[in-house]
Formats: sequence, C-alpha cells, structure tokens
Amino acid sequence: MVQESVEAESIVEKVPEEEISERSKRFQGILKAQGLDGALILQNVDIYYLAGTIQRSILWVPQEGPPLLMAIKSHQRARDESPLKEVVPIRNRQEIWSVMREYGYRNSGHIGLELDVLPTSYYLWLQKSLPQARWTDVSHDIRKLRMIKSPYEVNQIRRATAILDKGFHEIRGLIHEGMMELEVDGYLAYIARREGHMGILRMRGWNQEMTYAHVLSGESGAVVSFGDTPAGGVGATPAMAQGAGFRRIRKNEPVCIDYGIGINGYLSDQTRTFVIGELPETLQRAHECSRTIHQAVSREAKPGVSCEHLFHLAESLAKEAGFEAAFMGNGEGKVKFIGHGFGLEIDEYPILTPPFPELLQEGMVFALEPKFIFPGQGVVGIEDDYLVTASGLERLTLTDQEILRIS
Amino acid sequence: MVQESVEAESIVEKVPEEEISERSKRFQGILKAQGLDGALILQNVDIYYLAGTIQRSILWVPQEGPPLLMAIKSHQRARDESPLKEVVPIRNRQEIWSVMREYGYRNSGHIGLELDVLPTSYYLWLQKSLPQARWTDVSHDIRKLRMIKSPYEVNQIRRATAILDKGFHEIRGLIHEGMMELEVDGYLAYIARREGHMGILRMRGWNQEMTYAHVLSGESGAVVSFGDTPAGGVGATPAMAQGAGFRRIRKNEPVCIDYGIGINGYLSDQTRTFVIGELPETLQRAHECSRTIHQAVSREAKPGVSCEHLFHLAESLAKEAGFEAAFMGNGEGKVKFIGHGFGLEIDEYPILTPPFPELLQEGMVFALEPKFIFPGQGVVGIEDDYLVTASGLERLTLTDQEILRIS
Repeated sequence: MVQESVEAESIVEKVPEEEISERSKRFQGILKAQGLDGALILQNVDIYYLAGTIQRSILWVPQEGPPLLMAIKSHQRARDESPLKEVVPIRNRQEIWSVMREYGYRNSGHIGLELDVLPTSYYLWLQKSLPQARWTDVSHDIRKLRMIKSPYEVNQIRRATAILDKGFHEIRGLIHEGMMELEVDGYLAYIARREGHMGILRMRGWNQEMTYAHVLSGESGAVVSFGDTPAGGVGATPAMAQGAGFRRIRKNEPVCIDYGIGINGYLSDQTRTFVIGELPETLQRAHECSRTIHQAVSREAKPGVSCEHLFHLAESLAKEAGFEAAFMGNGEGKVKFIGHGFGLEIDEYPILTPPFPELLQEGMVFALEPKFIFPGQGVVGIEDDYLVTASGLERLTLTDQEILRIS
Repeated sequence: MVQESVEAESIVEKVPEEEISERSKRFQGILKAQGLDGALILQNVDIYYLAGTIQRSILWVPQEGPPLLMAIKSHQRARDESPLKEVVPIRNRQEIWSVMREYGYRNSGHIGLELDVLPTSYYLWLQKSLPQARWTDVSHDIRKLRMIKSPYEVNQIRRATAILDKGFHEIRGLIHEGMMELEVDGYLAYIARREGHMGILRMRGWNQEMTYAHVLSGESGAVVSFGDTPAGGVGATPAMAQGAGFRRIRKNEPVCIDYGIGINGYLSDQTRTFVIGELPETLQRAHECSRTIHQAVSREAKPGVSCEHLFHLAESLAKEAGFEAAFMGNGEGKVKFIGHGFGLEIDEYPILTPPFPELLQEGMVFALEPKFIFPGQGVVGIEDDYLVTASGLERLTLTDQEILRIS
C-alpha cells in the first residue's frame, strides 16, 4: 500500500440549490401532467435527489408550491443539508398528515408513491391512515426524471471516474501471482475509501446488492450468479454469491475487475481486464471485439438513436467475430443488454436492451459493457462510461481500453 | 499494509442440510399455529436462512411437506447450494402458481409474506395474480425464528469475531496522527476482505445501510445522523451521511471504530476506542463506565431476564457516574436501546430496549454497546458480542475492553 491519500476536504459538499429547484420543477410538471395532487417521496435515494439529504424524512412534493421535508432524524442535519425552504421536524410518520395540513397542503386526493421500492407494510399503513386517498406508482416517472443528468451530476460522475482511473493503475502495480481475489478486492476498497468513495454502490432492484468491486480471475469469471450482470463470480460464500472469492490468481488468465466509486451519491462503474503474462489467443480476440463494439457504438450513438439499434449493432459485431455464444454471458447466465444507465443507483435508465422504449437523449449517461464469457477460462471485456451529448457520445472513462498487462 | 493473507479456502462452504431442515420444521410449526397454508419467502436473506442460497428464487414453504425452491437465476447454482430436495427452474415469477400446483401444493387459501421488506408493487402483483388468496405478514415470526441461533450459526459468528480481533490489532499499528478517517476505513476494508469478509453488512430496516466500518474521530463522533445508532458520523457526503469522512485524526481525542465482518452470511459487530496520546479525563471515565455496564449486564443477563431490566440497569449506572446526558447519544441523537441482536442482518432481535417484549432465551446473540457521546469531543465506548447460554452470558468478542492506545 504505497501512496498517501488525496487532498483533505474538510467540508462536506451539499447539493446546490438550483439543482434541487430544477428537479422539483421537472417533477412537478410530471405530477401535473398525471393529474396527481402530489407525491410522498419515501426512499432515501429519491429524497436525496429531490431534497439533498438522506436524513430520515418524508418529502411531500405538491403539484404546485414548495416541497415540504418532514424530518424525523436528524432534523438539524436535514435542515443544514437540504436547500429546501420548508424543513420541519416530526417525531414519527403518524404526524405527517397534520403537519401537511398545517402547511396548507391538501393531503387527500390522488397521491404518487415509489411502489417499486416501498415496503408493503408501509404502504398498507398509508392506505389505512389516509383511507380517502388514491395512490399511484410514480417510480417509473422518477426513474425517467433521474435518467437525464445535469452538468452538476455529470461532474460528480467525472470525479468518480478520475478515482477509478487512479485505482486501475494502482492495482496494476499490486496484483501478483498467487494473490487471492479477495485481497485484490481489499486493496481496491482501500484505494476507493482513501480517495473519498462514499462507501456504498446503491442498486434499486429488489434483492440486488453490490460490493465495491468484482474481481474475477480465470474460470471464476464464468460462474453465473443471481445478478443482472453478464459475469457473476463465486464470491466468498453462497450468502453473497458474487464477486471476489478465495481463488488465487494465476499466470496467463484474465483478471476481470469491475469497479465502482461513488462521489456525492453519484457512481461511476467501469471494467478492465488484467493479465499476468499473456491471454489465450481466443480471449485476446474477444477483448479486441469488445473494443470494436465500443468504437462502433461510439460512432452511432447520439440523440434519437434507439437502444435496440445499439444492442443489435453490438450483437452483430460479436457474431461476425465468432463470439455469439460467449457474448454477454454463457448459457443461463446470458443477459439481454449491453449497457445500463447509472447515477445515484447503478441500475438506472436507459437500459441498452431491445425492449427499452426511450430513444437516446442528451444528458443520458450509461455504462457500455460488451463482455465475453468463456466457461472454464473466464471473462474479458471493457466497461466504459459515456455521456450522450447533442453531437454524440462523450467517453467519460479516462483509462485506456487495452488489456492491462502486469509485468 | 503489512501482512499477507489468511489460508486459502478454495471451496465455498454451504449451509448444512440439518440446519435447513431444522429451520424449516420450526417455521412450519409457526405456520401451522397461525393456520396458514404456507408462506412465500421472497427476500434474499430469508431465502438464504430457509434454503441456503441467495440465487434469484421464490421459496414456497407449505405448512407440511417439503419446501419448494423455484429458481430463476442461477437455477444450477441454487440446486448446488441449497440442501433442499425440491429445486425447480422457472423463467419468471408468473410461473410459480402452475409449478406449485404441479408439485401438489395448494396455492390459494391463507399465505404468509414478508410484508416488512416486500416491495409494494410485488405485493400488488401477487394480489392480482392470485385474487382468491388471503395474505398475512409473517416477517415478525421469521425475525423471531432467526433470533435463536444454532451452534452452527454461533460458530460462523465466532469466525467473524476472530477476524475483528485481528483487524482491531492490525489497525492499531497503522493509525497515525494526520491520517484521514476514510483512509483508516479503507485499511479496515482491506483487512476485512483479505480475511474473507463476504463484502456486505445487511440491514433489514427501510432506508438503512451500512459501510464496513464507522471510523469516527474527535468531534465527528458526536455528529448525529439518520441511523438507529448512538453515533452517526459525518460521512464523506450527505448522500451517505454516516461513518468515516475527510477529517484527519489528531492527538488526545477518541477514535471510535465500529467494525463489522460477515462470514457465510453471519455478522459480527464490535466497537473499540483508540487514542494517540491520552483522552480527556471525562472521556476516560465514560469509557470506564461503558466497561462497568458490560460487567454488570454480564452478571445479570441470563434466560428469563427482560431487555427492559438490562436497559434500566445500564442507564442507572450511567446516571450514577454522572453521564446521563452523554449516554447513548446526545440531544436528538439519543437512542433508547443499549444493544441489538444480529446474525444474517445487523438489526435482528432481541433489541435491548424497554418495550421489547421477549425475555432473554438461550441461543440469542446480541451486541451490547453502551456508548457516550460528548458534543465537540466525540464518542467513547465498547461494543461486544454476547451469546445467551443456559447459565448466563458468554462473551464472543476476543479483544480486550481497554482503550487501545497508539504509541
């Protein structure tokens, strides 16, 4: 563990007020269009997006007028962190209706909720405590809202990206033959935190979880697991069943590292393939094919292009190179996408899959991850982050796309 | 980063068959007592508890007869990992009713669900797809079942405990003046993973999350946050708002490290207070009071004793020593418990709080964490893990209870 640390930043950074007010405005536009009186925002990530804090609170966003953040714990900190004007203390959720009425909000009618993540018992409590209300799922709308990133958001991702670049280079100097996958993962965690990684990579999907990194060496890279990813890995135990395990790294096999960093909530998610010695020729060619796909997608992708088109473009290039079976997973592990949006969560819109209905738009950010899985041999490929701009894709990743050889 | 690694274990360990069959039997006893036809288990942690895998699946536990694990991805891996006899592939959740009927199960009637964690949209889908069923929340029953640990489970916790001991000693040699909290956290993450930590510390509570460790130095230890913990910390960003941040460690202030490790799903959760130099006298006395509380609770706790009694015992010792205001948090950060159960999740039963209704029973495991928070100065205290045995408490923690001085 060689280097000493990033510059200290003693002041925690808050979400700028203009960000929050712009997001509120866009969300209120959706509420209005859907004829909703407002939405109760209850999940920490969505509260952070719309209020700038994850302190235990309930956010009421009315169709019109200022949002109301009702903070349980810490009220003081919610008030400090959130740029919202109306931040009021409550002791528990039972108080929300009376507080909302006090602030002049109508809390009956038709109310939006994040039904994709809200626990059922919470929903049943809401139903019971406000029987006259009608409830509608707005989770898809919130995800669509969050799909388009502002320059502030892209800047947070760029900062995470810079740390990933540093991490990939530093780990290249640390990996050696006989090292356990878990130890490589540990170094990556050390680097991440030393450089300011916030300590979690959030996923929205039910039962989905992430570690800081996936370190998959040799055949363990071809082990299928539960996640919606082309490569799962053995993990240290069936209780986690993904990522690094007790396997020791050997010469002439791929060491595929999928690494994430979060800065002010915003993730960056990238993959590089390392090798001590040389990869088998087939795997080298597959890695080259991943690069070709990145180039082709980079040429074609721009606002108005469909995710379906990009998926088929990638798939046809994989077929042409003779890698149809290995493309994006093997057997029951095969997934039907080549990339995914990310931001506050690692599984955001857009999804680069044929059925995804939205066309590319300016401000979308996605990770493109054409990967190739060879049972018994492992996984190779490149995952890079891109921003959709008016003129096409901008690559946010700083690291070269080559196989990273370890001498 | 000095030491090289634990012994390699190349084979991932599975949950023993007797464990799973014993758990099923106990759960079926509850289903019968409640007049339920069965329960659909949908959360990864509960599926792991009852089937030994977190592969994407749906577990049907009938009131009688063998449980049926319907595995979506990876079916092969679910079959390898789970000791259950009936593991069948399904493509998606739409298939569960017909598969259950095929296997001779009656899937109408009265069915248990984990409503405390199940997303509402999933629940609404179940209601719609099986309109003739009645649904009942069994999450409290599952949590009560999981509250009593088997010798196998305690053994996993002991293994995690041994790593924590190693970690506390190793980090003692690495902390130095001017080091960033986040860097200390990074080293702890490195040690954890190198020694086999599974890579996540799970919490059941809505919007609750954990990093591998909390490293809180000086006044940042007194910063309140959203969690149900006496000490929250600043964190690296309001988007995470807990644990280590950019603050640099100084002499003569507490560095409080709350550290967790997971082995085969089972956590251990402990806290030690470190100092470079000497603590202010008040904080030293408060730390001594934490130790006194550990001793008093260890003497009194045994099967049949109430959590309320232990809480008041601890509280009265804190009051006697003049630390009422600092005990278990300050101001709005004060929490009303002195410890909590843990196992597959970090927020299990029992909760050592006055309203918790269950008396201590053999096989319960809990973390006792009498902590003292001094605004502007920090947090001190000891968190140790205990097992309730027939004759009283057995301390699972291996590390001494002293303040760990850094020379």
